[in-house]
Amino acid sequence: MTSSAHYLINGESDNWLSPLDRGVAYGDGVFRTLKVNHGLPVAWAPHYQKLEQDCSALGIVCPGPDILLADIERLFTPDEEAVAKIIVTRGIGPRGYAVPPAASPTRIVIREAFPQYPSINYDQGVNLHLCQLRLSHQPRLAGIKHLNRLENVLARSEWSDPSIAEGLLLDEDGLVVACTMSNLFARFGKTVVTPVLDKCGVAGITRQRIIDNVQNMGYQPEIRQLHLDQLMQADEIIICNSLFGAWQVRSLNNRVWLPQDLASHIRTILQE
Amino acid sequence: MTSSAHYLINGESDNWLSPLDRGVAYGDGVFRTLKVNHGLPVAWAPHYQKLEQDCSALGIVCPGPDILLADIERLFTPDEEAVAKIIVTRGIGPRGYAVPPAASPTRIVIREAFPQYPSINYDQGVNLHLCQLRLSHQPRLAGIKHLNRLENVLARSEWSDPSIAEGLLLDEDGLVVACTMSNLFARFGKTVVTPVLDKCGVAGITRQRIIDNVQNMGYQPEIRQLHLDQLMQADEIIICNSLFGAWQVRSLNNRVWLPQDLASHIRTILQE
Repeated sequence: MTSSAHYLINGESDNWLSPLDRGVAYGDGVFRTLKVNHGLPVAWAPHYQKLEQDCSALGIVCPGPDILLADIERLFTPDEEAVAKIIVTRGIGPRGYAVPPAASPTRIVIREAFPQYPSINYDQGVNLHLCQLRLSHQPRLAGIKHLNRLENVLARSEWSDPSIAEGLLLDEDGLVVACTMSNLFARFGKTVVTPVLDKCGVAGITRQRIIDNVQNMGYQPEIRQLHLDQLMQADEIIICNSLFGAWQVRSLNNRVWLPQDLASHIRTILQE
Repeated sequence: MTSSAHYLINGESDNWLSPLDRGVAYGDGVFRTLKVNHGLPVAWAPHYQKLEQDCSALGIVCPGPDILLADIERLFTPDEEAVAKIIVTRGIGPRGYAVPPAASPTRIVIREAFPQYPSINYDQGVNLHLCQLRLSHQPRLAGIKHLNRLENVLARSEWSDPSIAEGLLLDEDGLVVACTMSNLFARFGKTVVTPVLDKCGVAGITRQRIIDNVQNMGYQPEIRQLHLDQLMQADEIIICNSLFGAWQVRSLNNRVWLPQDLASHIRTILQE
């Protein structure tokens, strides 16, 4: 099932994880998923910055960038396109929610094969499922890519049809948040809107890179509340993450959008 | 830090946890914490029933009771009072939120020393901190003792004063839910109220045992919404869990309650 995976725990290849690690006890940690090209992590600077911010939000000391880059160098060969998953937990602790003052963070770097995405996702766009599960509001955790991801697991289990690439998530007020493993943009004319993520959702670095660059493409970025009925009126919908880049949404909730140019423009920008 | 801890993973003492386990990746699992007296788990029937219910709510196949009891028998000696923590995760899986159809659950049984609770907690009651963190509403996960516990970790980190035993948690609407590691009852005359847990919180088995038995003690149990200002008018407040049993609340939010009898009555009932 995971025969292609290899990993280092605190830099050691023969390490395993302690069942007393707070990562498993409480999901007390954060993670990143990134593309590695020819042994080099893509968009490393924003990925590391976000990892550090997320660690800081939970009061976890983030391992230094050189330590993580050394792990990546050891795990990945220069001749492949692969995925790195980095997990940083608060470390091993005694039973109980109180944060151990002397906890030493656990860092895990996992190498996995790059997914074989269908080419139709890039050419024609993807079909979205509208998830029944509504994301809960927790401002203290909103935006952080932490290890408490049962909502995503439950949402992803709502469909098994392989022609559906992603699931759209609304929050408990019915506002659009994101998809289960990607962020979302909606184009209205020359304005490109992405939902504000102050109550739930993960603020991915590809989302931020698009916000930062879309003006150079002639569009105005806007971060605001987005209702489902507004989303359904969009000229174009794009979903994005660090692995597939950007895909246009082809269908959602009985509406179909014909292929347009924004997703491929964004992919070009993301490759620079 | 945890030198007294010993554990079995899938029944093996020399096992460690895979970093690819969905328990750490997503907090995709459930747990129990219970008292073990002379090698025998206390209130095993309700603990196992709840473990099975919680597994079922997430679509995880629960290990059979005999398998878990055999683990406990191997880990615990007949001459001690100790704590068993049981974790069941969905098991190892490839990257991605989709539930692997062939995932085989991971079971972890950990032995820890029984906590040395201050005797004043039993004699005089405990002081509660009113947590700033508000619990989010997720009806799909409410009541389940799952591994997504960052809210509890954040709430517990709000105080370090050792004279404060617990923190009271309100939900996003300001309703009383529970404490960080215990459930709560408020007595009004002959009625004993505990908050309804259909939007958040953990429905502990000690809470259920008290609901089931309080009528024999001459009280009427009531499960309903409870506002903080109502709670502050209670004749008596009790918190409970499987380890300490029941403690009266001595102080909360500038009100002090003198020691009364309900907590010790409940402890007697729980020992039967």
